[in-house]
Amino acid sequence: MSETTGTYTQTARSTPTRYASRASYDRAAVHAVIDEALVCHVGFIRDAAPVVLPTVHARAGDVLYIHGSSGGRFSLLDGEPVGVTITLVDCLVLARSWLHHSAAYRSVVIHGTARIVTDGEEKLAAMASLIDRVARGRAADTRPPTPKELAKTAIVAIELAEASLKVRGDQLAEEPGDEQLPHWAGVIPLKLAAGVPVPAADLVEGVKLPDYLIDYSRG
Amino acid sequence: MSETTGTYTQTARSTPTRYASRASYDRAAVHAVIDEALVCHVGFIRDAAPVVLPTVHARAGDVLYIHGSSGGRFSLLDGEPVGVTITLVDCLVLARSWLHHSAAYRSVVIHGTARIVTDGEEKLAAMASLIDRVARGRAADTRPPTPKELAKTAIVAIELAEASLKVRGDQLAEEPGDEQLPHWAGVIPLKLAAGVPVPAADLVEGVKLPDYLIDYSRG
Repeated sequence: MSETTGTYTQTARSTPTRYASRASYDRAAVHAVIDEALVCHVGFIRDAAPVVLPTVHARAGDVLYIHGSSGGRFSLLDGEPVGVTITLVDCLVLARSWLHHSAAYRSVVIHGTARIVTDGEEKLAAMASLIDRVARGRAADTRPPTPKELAKTAIVAIELAEASLKVRGDQLAEEPGDEQLPHWAGVIPLKLAAGVPVPAADLVEGVKLPDYLIDYSRG
Repeated sequence: MSETTGTYTQTARSTPTRYASRASYDRAAVHAVIDEALVCHVGFIRDAAPVVLPTVHARAGDVLYIHGSSGGRFSLLDGEPVGVTITLVDCLVLARSWLHHSAAYRSVVIHGTARIVTDGEEKLAAMASLIDRVARGRAADTRPPTPKELAKTAIVAIELAEASLKVRGDQLAEEPGDEQLPHWAGVIPLKLAAGVPVPAADLVEGVKLPDYLIDYSRG
């Protein structure tokens, strides 16, 4: 892991057009959102049009790894510009006016260049990170890939250099006077919640739900 | 509302490179995912690089409306190619091998051209749809925008013509023999769950939580 303090360099395109005061370039804050989120959305260009696809990701220091398949679209991105965005929605903000309806969210926008990971050691470490990002401890508690399985996976690395976080809190805004309107206003918290784990029917006898999957949560 | 039966036309770029059998072009199935999701990720091109930003959306028949601000980045997209992707993650799929770790998800990928809505009537209707997509019934129970407020909002319309749904169910896959490994395997359901609504401190006396916000859920 490289250092996780300091800030990312702010650039023109990493500066929001609206509400720039909500933007942060703090490395630790950016990392926290990346690490909490289960999925990211990866944008790239094909035939002069933008394509956006979801996948899972993991971070190791200042490198973001995203998961693809050999033969899949991500496996063809080497050297290309990509945009990766990660969004957590924390709350609905329900004002008395349409205008002030909003959501509390934390969103990281990353601009970078895709690099297909070809080094076997880096690829294996990135895959372990991906598994452990789903549930910390899971990689050591499951079977690592065979060389053939490793070849089936494509891992794309993106350097975290031009990254920004935008945060909208859960404060309720109203136009002056709207407080007197007879409408309910307030906020509704939202979170990605886990249900009860459903074990495979054919678990080896005596195998129990591991501690790292009890009360699963991303928060 | 236009018809919601039939299928969208399959094109080269709306055909997944991998697991094409998981793709669907069924209009009703595509609409159901769009309508359930709270946020979408919008991709566009700036300075030869892809940019992906999150926002809220609503559908009216075969038109997707996305929300932006006048002066914001979406307000400058008129006539440009955009890619919009909407992802719902339903389940973690935890196999005995790294390779077969997966997630159950439903993801809609839309390719289209942005059109900034300038007609006042269409814009107002789109904004009502956006409010009602957050909570059905909310638009009629809050204050509509003044002309000045309407001007502050930018609504982008994208025709749903080239749209596809990809679904990965919650089935657990294993390599032959891996069932005998002493690792826990199974699935963990996930959903966006709402907490207890928090009312504004200054609600007009007697105003209660409306029925449409009780037990809030996107499902």
